[in-house]
Amino acid sequence: MEQIKKFELSKDYLERLELEIVQENAAFILASLEGVNVADIAAILDELEISDALYVLRLVDKQLAADILIELYESTLVKLLQEVETTEIANWIVLMDSDDGADIISFFSEKEREEVIAEIDDRVKLEQILELLRYEEDTAGGIMAKEFIRANKNWNVVQTINEIRRQAENVDKFYSIYVVNNKFQLLGRVSLKKIILASSDTLIADILEEDIFSVPVHMEQGEVATLMRKYDLESVPVVNAKNKLVGRITVDDILDVVQEEAEEDIQAMAGVSADIEESDSVFTISKARLPWLLIGVIGGLMGAKLIGFFEGGLSKYLALASFIPLVAATGGNVGIQASSLIVQSLASKSAFDDTLWQRFFKGFLVALLNGFVLGIFVFLVVAYVYGFEPVFGITVGVALFCVVLLSSFMGTVTPLVLHHYGINPAIASGPFITTTNDLLGLAVYFGVAMLLLNL
Amino acid sequence: MEQIKKFELSKDYLERLELEIVQENAAFILASLEGVNVADIAAILDELEISDALYVLRLVDKQLAADILIELYESTLVKLLQEVETTEIANWIVLMDSDDGADIISFFSEKEREEVIAEIDDRVKLEQILELLRYEEDTAGGIMAKEFIRANKNWNVVQTINEIRRQAENVDKFYSIYVVNNKFQLLGRVSLKKIILASSDTLIADILEEDIFSVPVHMEQGEVATLMRKYDLESVPVVNAKNKLVGRITVDDILDVVQEEAEEDIQAMAGVSADIEESDSVFTISKARLPWLLIGVIGGLMGAKLIGFFEGGLSKYLALASFIPLVAATGGNVGIQASSLIVQSLASKSAFDDTLWQRFFKGFLVALLNGFVLGIFVFLVVAYVYGFEPVFGITVGVALFCVVLLSSFMGTVTPLVLHHYGINPAIASGPFITTTNDLLGLAVYFGVAMLLLNL
Repeated sequence: MEQIKKFELSKDYLERLELEIVQENAAFILASLEGVNVADIAAILDELEISDALYVLRLVDKQLAADILIELYESTLVKLLQEVETTEIANWIVLMDSDDGADIISFFSEKEREEVIAEIDDRVKLEQILELLRYEEDTAGGIMAKEFIRANKNWNVVQTINEIRRQAENVDKFYSIYVVNNKFQLLGRVSLKKIILASSDTLIADILEEDIFSVPVHMEQGEVATLMRKYDLESVPVVNAKNKLVGRITVDDILDVVQEEAEEDIQAMAGVSADIEESDSVFTISKARLPWLLIGVIGGLMGAKLIGFFEGGLSKYLALASFIPLVAATGGNVGIQASSLIVQSLASKSAFDDTLWQRFFKGFLVALLNGFVLGIFVFLVVAYVYGFEPVFGITVGVALFCVVLLSSFMGTVTPLVLHHYGINPAIASGPFITTTNDLLGLAVYFGVAMLLLNL
Repeated sequence: MEQIKKFELSKDYLERLELEIVQENAAFILASLEGVNVADIAAILDELEISDALYVLRLVDKQLAADILIELYESTLVKLLQEVETTEIANWIVLMDSDDGADIISFFSEKEREEVIAEIDDRVKLEQILELLRYEEDTAGGIMAKEFIRANKNWNVVQTINEIRRQAENVDKFYSIYVVNNKFQLLGRVSLKKIILASSDTLIADILEEDIFSVPVHMEQGEVATLMRKYDLESVPVVNAKNKLVGRITVDDILDVVQEEAEEDIQAMAGVSADIEESDSVFTISKARLPWLLIGVIGGLMGAKLIGFFEGGLSKYLALASFIPLVAATGGNVGIQASSLIVQSLASKSAFDDTLWQRFFKGFLVALLNGFVLGIFVFLVVAYVYGFEPVFGITVGVALFCVVLLSSFMGTVTPLVLHHYGINPAIASGPFITTTNDLLGLAVYFGVAMLLLNL
């Protein structure tokens, strides 16, 4: 019994390992990896040179190698697959669950795929993989596994247990047995608990639980995640258009989906496109970041033009320049706050479209209150701490108040509009909206100044 | 068999329901909720007035009412609990899983808690709840359930099945049976699959899987989530300091943890404190947002002072004011990008502390590259599109380049420092760091301008 046995991945061990790999000391390497968890071995190989990682992979048991492969960082995996003959890859794939095998194959180009597929000599596995490859990566079909236990409704408990025995080797984890008719259409499920507690001659049809959820193959993975989370499902069967049972999704697959989608949202908010990991190259990271920075820079250049229009006023009242960052930053902050709250509520439980106006109204009230507090605060500081004339304090305060209202409106509307058009609303908290809010804020600020200061 | 039966929660239905509640038409209400999933009923009650929701809760079967309660929005739940006598609450709690019961009780003040607890008449449940209440909310002990199946290592399969039969009513979902010694210390687990496939007289000790993970009660919930995700665990036993089995955590609990932590990160980035839902009151939302906006405003006011120092230079070269938003915004954007990448890598697989310098260096290279590209771009636009003199274009370009480097440095270091001191590093992408970067950016901008323009 091991309690959260964290493998001690020290720099010393890694250096030693690299040395032993050079000296091809297989005995040391195998001994040091003995009993270490697959995910931990993968983490070690992620740190090695590709050729070294490959050496270790070829040294260990084939099944272990296949298990390690699917736990590697994507960047390591892709590089590694380029170094290996298609036969070797095919031999590994045969030892994987079909969904993992399909994932590996999907890293190859069309042409290479054909070559790898041609080398897979397990017919059942091959058919399963080919079927999985037909589905979009981020749909139920793309994340489901073909390994599940299926029982006919006319079987009794003994027949079902025999089927479990037959499949036990292929199917690692299962919580329930899916029940189908003679056309393999899904009828319901029987839990393992019921199988254990039922007498041997009990008919499956009699302990069948019909009132269960299933999802269609084409359902978007985020939707599957929401469904499983909302209804606390540990696994969900996947059916095709004819209600034929074609796969199942377990909650641990969904855990990865939830994590991925959260990371996507954070990346969208931070303005980083694509799926960037810290281990990617300098150019890849730079390329993922530049476009978003450019949006900000172009916005800034437009802002410069805008301020240029007010140069006359600015020259008469130079202090106006000092409060530009205040106005711009507050606009950005308010916009992000408003949009993140909307994004969050879009992602959670059923939101009524009917309450849209209610939401706008509430957002408006919050903005009114915050704008008022901040406006007064800034007026007091500008007029009585910084010692500008009161009318200038009023100008900055009023401008800030207007900017809070406007940014809050933009921050509320933008994610709703994006969501309506099927675009990830988290983008609304990113550089694009911040830039837009900056520009609007500047226009409002100088507009108010022109009016109140008679410039 | 229902395929993703989405309950059609139309405005019409809701209006009808409200009407029937006023008229106390129990028959309609019960009929319309017949067969609807618990989570969907909770979503309906979330939309009703508290008194109406309470009416429905008291109408339905007691077990169903208890199940609905734990699916309600927190804000609905808290309001509802205030309207109900402690006896009624205690009766509901008895029907819940112990962890849900403990959650409900933790919404009350110390004094009210005592009153509710005094009314719970199920001794076993009461003891379990009292134990759970001892643990911090966001630790393994705080999220674990006391409902699990435990077998002694000396039992055989038949004895174990009898225990399952005895517990079947209390324990809803289980995937494995935890095996303990006579002191109730955890020894390992046996999967249901093995129980089904073994002969009746097989000893548990013979099919025991000893090499499993367990977590200590005080482990932080985020760590439990990382562990379960990394090692693909569907459930994990929780042990106390003496290795006594005290509970278990299932992956569907963890799904909520992952979602919660992601939301916390997004809220930290967006500058919204506490756990705010859109359904909270205007004042609550406003209060959660104001402090962060104030940070930005105070930063803006300091920025105004800073710009004030350069008023002499500004009056000689008014165009400097125009590019303030460009510099400030780019600094903010770069900082958020850098910090979000670090936050993400801190949250993922084992990150070597040894590679810290490597990470800094890489971040520096990315910043160098992006700063160079953006600096050149801005120089060209300012000098040749906007028609300023080249030296001014160079000033803005060089300032931007420096700001990118500096902001990238700040965005990299801040989350690492926060993480080191046990603070959520996602805060580094929030208003605080954006404000700091704004100020630094302004100082650099005017510093460069003073030098290059001889002001």
